[in-house]
Amino acid sequence: MQDNFLLRDLDGDGVLRLTLNDVKRRNALSEAMLGELRAVFAEAGDNPAVRVIILAANGPAFCAGHDLKEMTAGRSAPDRGRAYFTKVMAMCSGVMQAVVNCPKPVIAEVTGIATAAGCQLVASCDLAVAAETAQFSTPGVHIGLFCSTPMVALSRNVGNKHAMEMLLTGEMIPAARAAEIGLVNRVVTTDALREATHEVARKIASKSSMTLATGKRAFYAQREMPLSEAYDYASSVMVENMLARDAEEGIGAFIEKRAPQWQEQ
Amino acid sequence: MQDNFLLRDLDGDGVLRLTLNDVKRRNALSEAMLGELRAVFAEAGDNPAVRVIILAANGPAFCAGHDLKEMTAGRSAPDRGRAYFTKVMAMCSGVMQAVVNCPKPVIAEVTGIATAAGCQLVASCDLAVAAETAQFSTPGVHIGLFCSTPMVALSRNVGNKHAMEMLLTGEMIPAARAAEIGLVNRVVTTDALREATHEVARKIASKSSMTLATGKRAFYAQREMPLSEAYDYASSVMVENMLARDAEEGIGAFIEKRAPQWQEQ
Amino acid sequence: MQDNFLLRDLDGDGVLRLTLNDVKRRNALSEAMLGELRAVFAEAGDNPAVRVIILAANGPAFCAGHDLKEMTAGRSAPDRGRAYFTKVMAMCSGVMQAVVNCPKPVIAEVTGIATAAGCQLVASCDLAVAAETAQFSTPGVHIGLFCSTPMVALSRNVGNKHAMEMLLTGEMIPAARAAEIGLVNRVVTTDALREATHEVARKIASKSSMTLATGKRAFYAQREMPLSEAYDYASSVMVENMLARDAEEGIGAFIEKRAPQWQEQ
Repeated sequence: MQDNFLLRDLDGDGVLRLTLNDVKRRNALSEAMLGELRAVFAEAGDNPAVRVIILAANGPAFCAGHDLKEMTAGRSAPDRGRAYFTKVMAMCSGVMQAVVNCPKPVIAEVTGIATAAGCQLVASCDLAVAAETAQFSTPGVHIGLFCSTPMVALSRNVGNKHAMEMLLTGEMIPAARAAEIGLVNRVVTTDALREATHEVARKIASKSSMTLATGKRAFYAQREMPLSEAYDYASSVMVENMLARDAEEGIGAFIEKRAPQWQEQ
Repeated sequence: MQDNFLLRDLDGDGVLRLTLNDVKRRNALSEAMLGELRAVFAEAGDNPAVRVIILAANGPAFCAGHDLKEMTAGRSAPDRGRAYFTKVMAMCSGVMQAVVNCPKPVIAEVTGIATAAGCQLVASCDLAVAAETAQFSTPGVHIGLFCSTPMVALSRNVGNKHAMEMLLTGEMIPAARAAEIGLVNRVVTTDALREATHEVARKIASKSSMTLATGKRAFYAQREMPLSEAYDYASSVMVENMLARDAEEGIGAFIEKRAPQWQEQ
Repeated sequence: MQDNFLLRDLDGDGVLRLTLNDVKRRNALSEAMLGELRAVFAEAGDNPAVRVIILAANGPAFCAGHDLKEMTAGRSAPDRGRAYFTKVMAMCSGVMQAVVNCPKPVIAEVTGIATAAGCQLVASCDLAVAAETAQFSTPGVHIGLFCSTPMVALSRNVGNKHAMEMLLTGEMIPAARAAEIGLVNRVVTTDALREATHEVARKIASKSSMTLATGKRAFYAQREMPLSEAYDYASSVMVENMLARDAEEGIGAFIEKRAPQWQEQ
């Protein structure tokens, strides 16, 4: 039941494939969907069998953003929806940050349209691979609701002028343009998409989970620091990483020209 | 009289076209020009009839930066110009920030050269469309005066290595390169420039002014915050935006498949 | 003796060419190499005869990062290497920041592979020119040691998704891709590399050293400030720059259409 909107498939390589599966609502980030995403990222973060996460979708839309009918229904409350909107925004921003804070790398596999909070979800992932037919937009201006939370993620991936063009015009950009401006890493044919994404995922899954978790956390943390603070912090991360078992094993294996054996976690 | 250096034309779509018109001085940011820009951005910000601003220029130069003869004349003061330079720099930095802080989106329409503070002016706009003959540089190093204020805007649009190449060499880059590095959004033929810029402007002018003002302000504010603070802030902006009349109207119109009717302001 | 690993050649234009020359160890950043780099950047910063620095390398590798055998030997200490790793990381981060803080512009001239801290060294330079055969990676994940210090420099040059792809997969990217994402300024043929780099260096060396030092310091400082603070700071830098002798000379020469004569320092 719980998995209706979010299919989960963990393979033998440690790649957890999550598939948004509320096709009728274009995989909108309804309360139910947000709840499932929140739960699965919390679980996957703690599960040593999960080494990398792919976020994919069924149907012609990757994700159409918030569920506007649900939001509109919230207006009937005595406070005109303030408490409800506050709850949904906190939930949604929480899910986006759960992707960023998840110790496992997260890769978006994008077919179809990714709009508003759906575009934000792609921007929040560590990596993104798109089909050549994928399209991206932050179309809130069309409905009087600026994509203010999506832009938090968008503007941390693309330049100011590119972000502002998407935000002010609300227009769709094709996958190739998304790659040019840095919103996705690469574009492949629709037929090749799944295998291309899994190939990247398997490569990353073959690394030490401890090392990936250490590095991912440090990446986003140092990004917000001034240079000299970032170096002090990253240097201390490197020292702890050097002292960890997987670095000793990995460096030893490299010098001895053999394959490393990582610890489970 | 006041409008000698800055032509103003507000059309029926709410697009205010400002044209730098001190052709003889290559549209230099003289005290007079800075004063007119400061005034017009203050007025336009408050004028509900203005929905979007285009910043264009007459003559072969979009804008050649500070007026060096005026600056040099300032050296004759007993303090060798310190008070005068301080005043001019404050005025110029004030105009650049007035562009950023203006609640109406601002689009640069660039023909010819945009150099030093002229390049900064383009970088300070939310969007920029350039003719294929446009050129950009921060040439202060040629005259012993590093483009230190221009680089504030430049480095918030393009990568460090690209910014440093312009700043350290002072060389011109063509429009196509400016598009590649993110200084302008797109490049069109000189003949098509005006219509291409107005097309973007009209699209944006058709949106709710309240929504555009909310989003523009939030964009630059959240860009300077750490991720979690940015999400808290943007979430609260979204809640207020949801409760505003134009979002209720826009979402209602979307669900009912009709055109939205925005409030005037 | 001291110069074994780092060749120094100062030409008549004020271009100091540093050549990493520990070919057998692929120009690894051994303690000895780091010590020489630290010394040369301190000296060059103070030497008025040095106007621009090129950082080049002999052999098929530009720089392979830390010396893993030296690091591994450090593990034999009673503290399993903690003190030693801490020292080496502080030394390495110090050298990287010495490049950034050096008052003379620094240009990387890259042939062959630049990996881990070698890639960081390129990212830390103000500019980088690469041969078409150059390659870049942050391969720490292969050996269980995430490139956490290299990413400080990398993520200040390229977008998040591009940085994360290099960091999470550890894969090599070719020079052309490095140029696309902003890690290097341009790519030329291997035959043309040295002359192309020196051409850029000579152009910059022809500028006022005072002006370059002022601007470089201000660039990295303002980059870490909010917009309005950055403008206050950069405006005061501009005022001091205007009052300096080289700006007066440079602006005078420009108005009089003659070549400027800079002060030595």
